[in-house]
Amino acid sequence: MAEHPTPTRDEVVAYLRERRNWGRWGADDQRGAINLITPEKRVEAAGLVRSGRSVSLSRDFPTIPGRHNPMPAQHFVRVMENGVVDYYGIVYHGYVATHVDALCHVWDGEGMWNGRDPAKEISSNGARFGAIDQWRDGITTRGVLLDIPKLRGEDFVTIERPIHGWELEAAAKAQGVSVGAGDAIVVYGGREKWQAAHPEWSGYRPPSPGLHASCLPFLRDHDVSVLVWDLMDAAPNEYGLPWTMHAAIFCYGVALVDNALVQPLAEACAEEGRYEFMLTFAPMPVIGGTGSPVNPLALL
Amino acid sequence: MAEHPTPTRDEVVAYLRERRNWGRWGADDQRGAINLITPEKRVEAAGLVRSGRSVSLSRDFPTIPGRHNPMPAQHFVRVMENGVVDYYGIVYHGYVATHVDALCHVWDGEGMWNGRDPAKEISSNGARFGAIDQWRDGITTRGVLLDIPKLRGEDFVTIERPIHGWELEAAAKAQGVSVGAGDAIVVYGGREKWQAAHPEWSGYRPPSPGLHASCLPFLRDHDVSVLVWDLMDAAPNEYGLPWTMHAAIFCYGVALVDNALVQPLAEACAEEGRYEFMLTFAPMPVIGGTGSPVNPLALL
Amino acid sequence: MAEHPTPTRDEVVAYLRERRNWGRWGADDQRGAINLITPEKRVEAAGLVRSGRSVSLSRDFPTIPGRHNPMPAQHFVRVMENGVVDYYGIVYHGYVATHVDALCHVWDGEGMWNGRDPAKEISSNGARFGAIDQWRDGITTRGVLLDIPKLRGEDFVTIERPIHGWELEAAAKAQGVSVGAGDAIVVYGGREKWQAAHPEWSGYRPPSPGLHASCLPFLRDHDVSVLVWDLMDAAPNEYGLPWTMHAAIFCYGVALVDNALVQPLAEACAEEGRYEFMLTFAPMPVIGGTGSPVNPLALL
Amino acid sequence: MAEHPTPTRDEVVAYLRERRNWGRWGADDQRGAINLITPEKRVEAAGLVRSGRSVSLSRDFPTIPGRHNPMPAQHFVRVMENGVVDYYGIVYHGYVATHVDALCHVWDGEGMWNGRDPAKEISSNGARFGAIDQWRDGITTRGVLLDIPKLRGEDFVTIERPIHGWELEAAAKAQGVSVGAGDAIVVYGGREKWQAAHPEWSGYRPPSPGLHASCLPFLRDHDVSVLVWDLMDAAPNEYGLPWTMHAAIFCYGVALVDNALVQPLAEACAEEGRYEFMLTFAPMPVIGGTGSPVNPLALL
Repeated sequence: MAEHPTPTRDEVVAYLRERRNWGRWGADDQRGAINLITPEKRVEAAGLVRSGRSVSLSRDFPTIPGRHNPMPAQHFVRVMENGVVDYYGIVYHGYVATHVDALCHVWDGEGMWNGRDPAKEISSNGARFGAIDQWRDGITTRGVLLDIPKLRGEDFVTIERPIHGWELEAAAKAQGVSVGAGDAIVVYGGREKWQAAHPEWSGYRPPSPGLHASCLPFLRDHDVSVLVWDLMDAAPNEYGLPWTMHAAIFCYGVALVDNALVQPLAEACAEEGRYEFMLTFAPMPVIGGTGSPVNPLALL
Repeated sequence: MAEHPTPTRDEVVAYLRERRNWGRWGADDQRGAINLITPEKRVEAAGLVRSGRSVSLSRDFPTIPGRHNPMPAQHFVRVMENGVVDYYGIVYHGYVATHVDALCHVWDGEGMWNGRDPAKEISSNGARFGAIDQWRDGITTRGVLLDIPKLRGEDFVTIERPIHGWELEAAAKAQGVSVGAGDAIVVYGGREKWQAAHPEWSGYRPPSPGLHASCLPFLRDHDVSVLVWDLMDAAPNEYGLPWTMHAAIFCYGVALVDNALVQPLAEACAEEGRYEFMLTFAPMPVIGGTGSPVNPLALL
Repeated sequence: MAEHPTPTRDEVVAYLRERRNWGRWGADDQRGAINLITPEKRVEAAGLVRSGRSVSLSRDFPTIPGRHNPMPAQHFVRVMENGVVDYYGIVYHGYVATHVDALCHVWDGEGMWNGRDPAKEISSNGARFGAIDQWRDGITTRGVLLDIPKLRGEDFVTIERPIHGWELEAAAKAQGVSVGAGDAIVVYGGREKWQAAHPEWSGYRPPSPGLHASCLPFLRDHDVSVLVWDLMDAAPNEYGLPWTMHAAIFCYGVALVDNALVQPLAEACAEEGRYEFMLTFAPMPVIGGTGSPVNPLALL
Repeated sequence: MAEHPTPTRDEVVAYLRERRNWGRWGADDQRGAINLITPEKRVEAAGLVRSGRSVSLSRDFPTIPGRHNPMPAQHFVRVMENGVVDYYGIVYHGYVATHVDALCHVWDGEGMWNGRDPAKEISSNGARFGAIDQWRDGITTRGVLLDIPKLRGEDFVTIERPIHGWELEAAAKAQGVSVGAGDAIVVYGGREKWQAAHPEWSGYRPPSPGLHASCLPFLRDHDVSVLVWDLMDAAPNEYGLPWTMHAAIFCYGVALVDNALVQPLAEACAEEGRYEFMLTFAPMPVIGGTGSPVNPLALL
């Protein structure tokens, strides 16, 4: 890896500040890199549906308490004479539920998406800017799987060796697939196998395996619109920054789909011998919401 | 309408008992008419994405209390130093939230889907049969809009004149579109305009405009897999049955998407002059859940 | 009523600003007028338990939706093999649930209790000052019922004629009871009868019958610690103030118990011919909470 | 301890079946041993308030996730212009929240309280018999602390040595206090110190220190109405019974207050040199509810 030096703190800060997309789609834009998903892009994505296989990228709705799930979701059922209804309650952010983050979800001292001031835009009533309802028309685009364990010849990514940006390039090359503007990348890190091998681990207690800050330029260089991942930011980061990969939300306007279940898609791609597909999901349109549980579909 | 007699009670009961799909996909089948959506069907659906326009069929997440929303959803926000998270809680069944019903959601004295006994399959822990997680791989198929107000030359359907089965046929014919096995039909009744004109109305207090039991054979004859609608069962029904159109869930195995927002799609179809499209949505995989809020997308 | 002029806006503002208790128990005090309830006061209160009758002052936990209850509480049940558990969820503030307000619950442009700045003390994580956990040791004191319908010879208080301060004095006198430092007053307005006669009414839509701002000096003059009431602030107030009676929270440090069920106590007092008793309740100790559902008991 | 043989399984079964209070207050009684708390008893209890000290017996509302709290309560805050409100949600049963169990909460193969059939009385809509609203008028009676660590000269009770019935007698004798009909006993086991010394322990994972089945006759012999405890049933029990001490609910009609915070009361009693006091609490009147979070007060 001598040819791939780890970026310095100054370099990472430069990824975030010098390359950010603020103003790129107008000062009032609230859709970010999702603007890159044009109608033509959606038609292109639909053209990738060939075998018709549908693969869910969602983990179970997390109702079961435990070390991995310190704030389990609520599921309660009411049985009636001729039917049954139920109640779902969830704090979906965190390290368990599959969900999409809205552009308002995170920020740093420089501000939130498009340079807005979170003190003005965010309150306990929700977000006035960059809320999840901005993406209510859904996100349907070309998806590309990047299988890092396959690249490494291992079952899962480890804490000692986070996923680096050059590996995303290498995985694409090894798989014979390119990444272009408006694409969703689905980065497989082997989470379910990692968890099975490390039952004591929970994302709520660092350290965690995941993507290193060096992956940020990959997103920006290729104009990626969506990052779907099973493992998230490698943590803790050595730069002392509040956010590394999650900064792609407020700096680049990228939609992050956290805690995806990627293993079945990795297996399907390996079986079909192709790594591109149609990816589609749509958040619940919660006015002012900071994200949404989603069940993204990969259609091969 | 002399040529279209309203079915008798015996005829409606026959729709439900003599034509039901129990056993059609095996005694243990939990996926119902979704089985008709084959990989080939999904490829066909993807082929309908031509202009690339994406239209959401979901109403707002219903947090605002009021006559139309007697059990509003919970949305609470927690602001932190560099980010914001929130809590969503909802009883999504009812007449407000856009949601899909699982096959376990309703039944009558004959039993639930595939003839199972709800007393054995349903408890306050959830459903052991026909739960929403059975459809976790999502539902992606050809969608067909049937625009009843347009057929009638009116703004919305009224209580006095529910939507009848022959009108579904007539709408398809007028629009030059056919309905086939595995399709999703999206029946537009003009709900948002109806509500604007009838601010006192709420689906929780009958009577309600909607689909008459005479629409049941349409679903069964055409082997429809999914019914998406903005207005639901015309209520009360004159037959004294616990369920009329909702019986399509447990008799035919059809997926119902209740309280859809159909007006924007009706406008888009009229603009583009075509009434077929790709329809896609995926429920939250709640183990044992009776349905899920969804945001279905129509891709034209 | 010529001898009882309604106070001017300047007079009401003076009630709030000139007579406030800020600093009275120290600049950092978070217990307010509850400081007046000394151990001796609790012993005195216990001495009032003579017949041993126990009367609840709590309305039902408000799970039933409806005009009067636009945000119903959640109650869901889970049945197991040898037992049953349930989930309670509630936004208890408002006009339905019986609850106590913490000192942090409301404020005006002058600040919150003890002159603190709500922008500094309140966040979506809760209150750092004046939260309900400050009263975790409970509130047990002498209670005095003031029965206004009885005084007026009517069933309930009306919108046209709010309860005025001189009526509180008159009721005490008519009932032969005095009010002293540290006491809880329980003001009966006939709410349940009012609601039965006005099914369209909901406190969420003014106007509402209740206590006029002229009652503020009564609280302050007598050093009342707790105000328990079934009808709340007469609304709207003619002064354009954000809060009138509720200002007793942040100006005087008084504990307000909103939406109490007072009718059974009014009947019990009339039967026993006495209007003083032991009043006791204790909030759930929610760290940072803004109040708590409570079931106050009057022990006669 | 040779003189105190541990009861055999047959003896424990006899405690439950031969001595149960079914029918004692009528076949339809839903209040159980709370019937023993007469108005006279409440007057007697009030007479015990001498120093006027008020001690809360409630632990914090359990919002903080962790090993000890696998299903944390929900607390969310909404800040407005001149005030702040919040949402509380909780599954209060379990080993964390201080709460009272209703008579409907548990049962065994013999039935629930008064011999009723849980299959008929309990559903996902709640309990039709023995629900918490039956005690809406509150529970105010004489309380007696029994300090087991003090008796043993240790800081807390251990798993190896559960609390036995003869120790309850011995503690009362050592403290110079008797226990009579209608009393509440508050059994101190040293939970907070136990937890501090055993950070890995959680009641959700047996074994647990607590009260042995041999304590059942103490409750029945003395006609105790309420059992308040910090540690609960010693677990697992060696008899293979679904419930041992918790069986006091459905066999004797006793109100159990689980997870009480007893240490401050133990310290107060030691300071004042007396072990009897007024105990008072009142559940939230949830129609059909299986219990309620409570903050019991001991007034010395």
